[in-house]
Amino acid sequence: MLLESYIDVRQRSERICAPLKTEDYVVQPIVDVSPPKWHLGHSSWFFEQFILKPYQKGYQEFDANYNFVFNSYYETVGARVIRTNRGNLTRPSVDEVMGYRTHVDEAMRSLLHHADQLPQEIKELATLGLNHEEQHQELLLTDIKYILGHNPLFPPYYQNRSNGVLAYVQTSDKLTTERSVSIDEGLYQIGHNGQGFCFDNELSVHQVYIPSYSIHKQLVTNKEYLEFILDGGYQNFRFWHAEGWDWVKNNQIEAPLYWHKIDNVWQHYTFGGLQDINDSEPVCHVSYYEAAAYASWKGKRLPTEFEWETAADKINWGKRWEWTESAYLPYPNFKKLPGAIGEYNGKFMVNQMVLRGSSIATSPGHSRKTYRNFFHPYLRWQFTGIRLTN
Amino acid sequence: MLLESYIDVRQRSERICAPLKTEDYVVQPIVDVSPPKWHLGHSSWFFEQFILKPYQKGYQEFDANYNFVFNSYYETVGARVIRTNRGNLTRPSVDEVMGYRTHVDEAMRSLLHHADQLPQEIKELATLGLNHEEQHQELLLTDIKYILGHNPLFPPYYQNRSNGVLAYVQTSDKLTTERSVSIDEGLYQIGHNGQGFCFDNELSVHQVYIPSYSIHKQLVTNKEYLEFILDGGYQNFRFWHAEGWDWVKNNQIEAPLYWHKIDNVWQHYTFGGLQDINDSEPVCHVSYYEAAAYASWKGKRLPTEFEWETAADKINWGKRWEWTESAYLPYPNFKKLPGAIGEYNGKFMVNQMVLRGSSIATSPGHSRKTYRNFFHPYLRWQFTGIRLTN
Amino acid sequence: MLLESYIDVRQRSERICAPLKTEDYVVQPIVDVSPPKWHLGHSSWFFEQFILKPYQKGYQEFDANYNFVFNSYYETVGARVIRTNRGNLTRPSVDEVMGYRTHVDEAMRSLLHHADQLPQEIKELATLGLNHEEQHQELLLTDIKYILGHNPLFPPYYQNRSNGVLAYVQTSDKLTTERSVSIDEGLYQIGHNGQGFCFDNELSVHQVYIPSYSIHKQLVTNKEYLEFILDGGYQNFRFWHAEGWDWVKNNQIEAPLYWHKIDNVWQHYTFGGLQDINDSEPVCHVSYYEAAAYASWKGKRLPTEFEWETAADKINWGKRWEWTESAYLPYPNFKKLPGAIGEYNGKFMVNQMVLRGSSIATSPGHSRKTYRNFFHPYLRWQFTGIRLTN
Amino acid sequence: MLLESYIDVRQRSERICAPLKTEDYVVQPIVDVSPPKWHLGHSSWFFEQFILKPYQKGYQEFDANYNFVFNSYYETVGARVIRTNRGNLTRPSVDEVMGYRTHVDEAMRSLLHHADQLPQEIKELATLGLNHEEQHQELLLTDIKYILGHNPLFPPYYQNRSNGVLAYVQTSDKLTTERSVSIDEGLYQIGHNGQGFCFDNELSVHQVYIPSYSIHKQLVTNKEYLEFILDGGYQNFRFWHAEGWDWVKNNQIEAPLYWHKIDNVWQHYTFGGLQDINDSEPVCHVSYYEAAAYASWKGKRLPTEFEWETAADKINWGKRWEWTESAYLPYPNFKKLPGAIGEYNGKFMVNQMVLRGSSIATSPGHSRKTYRNFFHPYLRWQFTGIRLTN
Repeated sequence: MLLESYIDVRQRSERICAPLKTEDYVVQPIVDVSPPKWHLGHSSWFFEQFILKPYQKGYQEFDANYNFVFNSYYETVGARVIRTNRGNLTRPSVDEVMGYRTHVDEAMRSLLHHADQLPQEIKELATLGLNHEEQHQELLLTDIKYILGHNPLFPPYYQNRSNGVLAYVQTSDKLTTERSVSIDEGLYQIGHNGQGFCFDNELSVHQVYIPSYSIHKQLVTNKEYLEFILDGGYQNFRFWHAEGWDWVKNNQIEAPLYWHKIDNVWQHYTFGGLQDINDSEPVCHVSYYEAAAYASWKGKRLPTEFEWETAADKINWGKRWEWTESAYLPYPNFKKLPGAIGEYNGKFMVNQMVLRGSSIATSPGHSRKTYRNFFHPYLRWQFTGIRLTN
Repeated sequence: MLLESYIDVRQRSERICAPLKTEDYVVQPIVDVSPPKWHLGHSSWFFEQFILKPYQKGYQEFDANYNFVFNSYYETVGARVIRTNRGNLTRPSVDEVMGYRTHVDEAMRSLLHHADQLPQEIKELATLGLNHEEQHQELLLTDIKYILGHNPLFPPYYQNRSNGVLAYVQTSDKLTTERSVSIDEGLYQIGHNGQGFCFDNELSVHQVYIPSYSIHKQLVTNKEYLEFILDGGYQNFRFWHAEGWDWVKNNQIEAPLYWHKIDNVWQHYTFGGLQDINDSEPVCHVSYYEAAAYASWKGKRLPTEFEWETAADKINWGKRWEWTESAYLPYPNFKKLPGAIGEYNGKFMVNQMVLRGSSIATSPGHSRKTYRNFFHPYLRWQFTGIRLTN
Repeated sequence: MLLESYIDVRQRSERICAPLKTEDYVVQPIVDVSPPKWHLGHSSWFFEQFILKPYQKGYQEFDANYNFVFNSYYETVGARVIRTNRGNLTRPSVDEVMGYRTHVDEAMRSLLHHADQLPQEIKELATLGLNHEEQHQELLLTDIKYILGHNPLFPPYYQNRSNGVLAYVQTSDKLTTERSVSIDEGLYQIGHNGQGFCFDNELSVHQVYIPSYSIHKQLVTNKEYLEFILDGGYQNFRFWHAEGWDWVKNNQIEAPLYWHKIDNVWQHYTFGGLQDINDSEPVCHVSYYEAAAYASWKGKRLPTEFEWETAADKINWGKRWEWTESAYLPYPNFKKLPGAIGEYNGKFMVNQMVLRGSSIATSPGHSRKTYRNFFHPYLRWQFTGIRLTN
Repeated sequence: MLLESYIDVRQRSERICAPLKTEDYVVQPIVDVSPPKWHLGHSSWFFEQFILKPYQKGYQEFDANYNFVFNSYYETVGARVIRTNRGNLTRPSVDEVMGYRTHVDEAMRSLLHHADQLPQEIKELATLGLNHEEQHQELLLTDIKYILGHNPLFPPYYQNRSNGVLAYVQTSDKLTTERSVSIDEGLYQIGHNGQGFCFDNELSVHQVYIPSYSIHKQLVTNKEYLEFILDGGYQNFRFWHAEGWDWVKNNQIEAPLYWHKIDNVWQHYTFGGLQDINDSEPVCHVSYYEAAAYASWKGKRLPTEFEWETAADKINWGKRWEWTESAYLPYPNFKKLPGAIGEYNGKFMVNQMVLRGSSIATSPGHSRKTYRNFFHPYLRWQFTGIRLTN
């Protein structure tokens, strides 16, 4: 079953990239957006570095230089002759990266063929590697959108949705008859407690005391957000954090990412190309600063991640990552894993805000109510949205 | 009594500046350090802008131009011919600023002469203004230290401590027989509940559930921190947040601020000039990144602000602001005040970490266990220190 | 004959790119290095914009969006929805750019079929367009070298020299029996006076009075330059311009571009990959600052562009662009051409230094003694070298 | 006579600073503008470092730390504990700097008491030191103007001109009956040939061949420049160098430095405070980019430094430093002096443009037709103006 998962996950990455032209795999327009071929190589390198090289007897490394081409933030670095930026590396070529994937896949398949006889440690690392690749699948989609959506030709990613990599998220009608749901004060259990995989940052399960609150069942829509724009929301400092206001002014922000006012009409770039704004869709591609400013304008606030998790079963979620008013910090008894794997989450626990839920770009199996996503408050190339609380 | 407080607080600011030469009042070596004369003018402007102009009939504004010279972050700004940096403004001169203070003081004394007959609103604004000035008094001390401590002549601030502006903090021997104190899990009350002044960010009082923990009674000493340096703490990425590690490398950090290795011996700049490191003093002038890295090296962690507040009566504190593992976020039911005063705290509640306690530079009356100080994690020109928890 | 030239020049650009992989066409690692597909598109856009659209009746523009994708520095710009960086544009793809070239080529061939019957104006524009493309051919080669030479895999550009795009420069043995040649003081004629094409910056021909001088017949070799390195040339400010010294320190320069000290031996990246330094080859890829510092270390100086041109027939040149001690300024009676073409050279006549000669990467027909090349003094990705004078 | 000169020059520096408040001595609002007290200290350090310490037996250094506080660009540097910026150094105080001046003056007066018996070498160094201080006097005036003119209170430098440090420049009526003067082509002698002091960059005297030209007798006036502004000169890229155009856009330049449009009327800051523009005064505080753009708009050009020097006796000059179209380069046979003094001029001979003439702020004795002033093309805080040629 681990083998089947392995094959599924690995193929899905390549399916996501199938509509790309070779040129699209190469560039890094901003530091947060990586070249698609880097994602493909890096997720392979993870298996090679942490499983194949230490545990697979006789494994032949594909290319020793790939170690520092495809390493991401792991500080285990050998001597380098030159320092480089991901987005300027035309080699290895896409074909070579695909060759690397095949090489790793063959070794991994061989290793996983009798997965049930493998030590627990390897199975856990393989599961981590697959979850890691699934996280990069969402980044692949958002990075592809950024690359194509910042091209003056606005090329669409697909002609139709036939490649099936975007989630179809059904919303529950039952939940929407009331605008919001009220939760009583009390001690609630937070964190991952059940079976199945979770990341280290979801642990340990613990109790949090939450005062009573009321949370909206639906996300803020484009139509609602447009009212904020029309009311001068981007011109009035009162709604903004001081650093958010600096961000607005320094970057001349006046709408969500991908929105363009063309002939005085707001349009936005989508995977299908430039399109009119759909009023009833949840607003997308907003920063934490925008989310908080919108809430302030409305006289509301964003939920904490604990409020969100506690209410998760009673609200409609899954289309947008939802900014919370919680900073990304360790849970009680959070433990870094030993070794390089221990760099996974803990080292990022400063200066970032937690997002909860999942989006149409989230990989299957990454939609769970304890999942903690996190980004800097000024970033908005993910499929991010807003939910109000008070 | 408000009048007496007013006179005391205002005189204390000037007493802090008494040892300065005129030149020392002018510069702004980094964006976070303001010129002393700016602090003196800005704290006066606060009274003029928020009390005298709206409430004192017939009040004659000292100089209309001072409004944008001494405004800080309040976005209520009139038309400006030129944009300026605080540290390049040689005028108004120190004498003119002192004239401004006298002008404001006279009007305020007149207003406060029968303070008991004043509307509650004015009394609250005056109290806020005094607390605001006391906060700037601590900044005055830290900014003066920065200005003199970054001069190659290392001029001392005072020859002896006779101006009495630094707190003498006595530590309780009773508390120190045990190294740490254990606190049981439970629901604890957090926030300001009592009589007397508090800032908006200390409200509202609320319950927090805290798992059991153990917290050190004493701060980390210079001697203990030196072991971290000697053990290569600044050269090993494993102890650091990713952004902390970038900060170390980009700024070539290898010791706390003001430490200089001279002829292979660590010395540090103090208000009395360059001196040898005192082993038993609490380490000072460390960033959050350094505090967290030290804790990680020790296999411990920093306390949350809730743990700190809960244990406050059982630990020795008051010499250093103590970095906590809590981001600066609003308490439940936090409310911004209306108008410009509402910009006081809420707009800064992102990207900063909470510090608890107080320091030798803290103004009298600002040492309370619910006080929430906050700074960006890379800053360390305040008198900051480290307390361990586990 | 214009038609034949057109076909030759256009094919040569594609021959230069033939060894590339698709990925290599896309990136812009530094602002001065353009993506190869941009060069291919931009040189085509030049013909479309300045010849086909104004003069070819019924010409069908290939794609209106290409106007601002492939415009370079011409400020004639229409409305843009988004601003972009060349190096992040994955579309148009290489195939589409090649389609653009074919489209332009067909229209140009048709136009040039009876070139002798065309108005002089069009023929001159076509000649300018070809010279323009030939300039971009040298940039193509230097940019390709930069892209591949800054990849940690150090991929070679070619396996052998079979594509024949690099010049084979024969040196005259007759000239080399004496180390240097002396030129008498006098009035000499400078600038382009003869038949054939020249750029506007080579005009008008004029007289310059030159004191007597002596100029080396050969360029400085790698061996000679290595002595400068070994003598601490990069560590001694005395040899450097003040801004050169800042450049050395800020960029930690310690050798020419593409030189790497591997296992304590200097190697350099070449079109054939990493290779040992050849002692007798002229040193290459040095900035003006390095050229001037080397000369100062030798107790010599660089020639002025007038000295160079006057001595050109008596020295061996053609392997390296040679930094001169002349700033790039207009000749007497220099005239900007009217319209967008007038932006060609004049607008760059500040802050740059003149280089004379030509290099192994220079296109055929661009080696003439009146040719004025120019770059900022810190740039060195061109094939630049050093000749001494005194 | 050297002693009298010494006393005169040194006193003049202090007379220039007499109207300042202590605060005005301290700041450095941009890197090119030094604190007045730094100028006072640096010019003293020059005498101490290059004359008193090497030649005055028994000279007692004032303070060893001053060596790196008051060194400017001389790279002869000892070990430093901290790196500092001039504009953040509040100490040494103005009083201490004045004490330093007195200390140096006493030693220098003693040395120069029998100047005629001193070795030629010392006399030349003393003369160089005085010329050096006179150069800093002009910088003192321009830096003071910048410091006060960028203060939102626009404090005047003087109430009346009684301190007499600005030149009164009489223009010759005889010269102005014709608008321009024509000069025949020919070989002209350039450089300093006569008696008296000159800087190394004015040597050696040499011949330059100049084609015939016509040069305006008067500088461009405010009224003429205003026409350029009103005609959209700052909005039309055609008149600008490419780097000039970038400068205009990046800095949102729309008028000369110190010009402010207040209630829709152009005013400018002067030593006497904010004043209306005087139509008939020569335009002042323009960059090379603006000078060249204005000339281009007029269909003219700037003179070369050789044209200027050749015509100097036939034109009215002395109110503004005049941008020429000549880059700052060494004359034939230019020789760097040995030792630290050799850093005086040669190391700046790249990336700067030559200005000729002198201004109302120029020290007496620095107005000579061979004088070569030089600045980067974007700088305009000097008293710079425009003269047309064709």
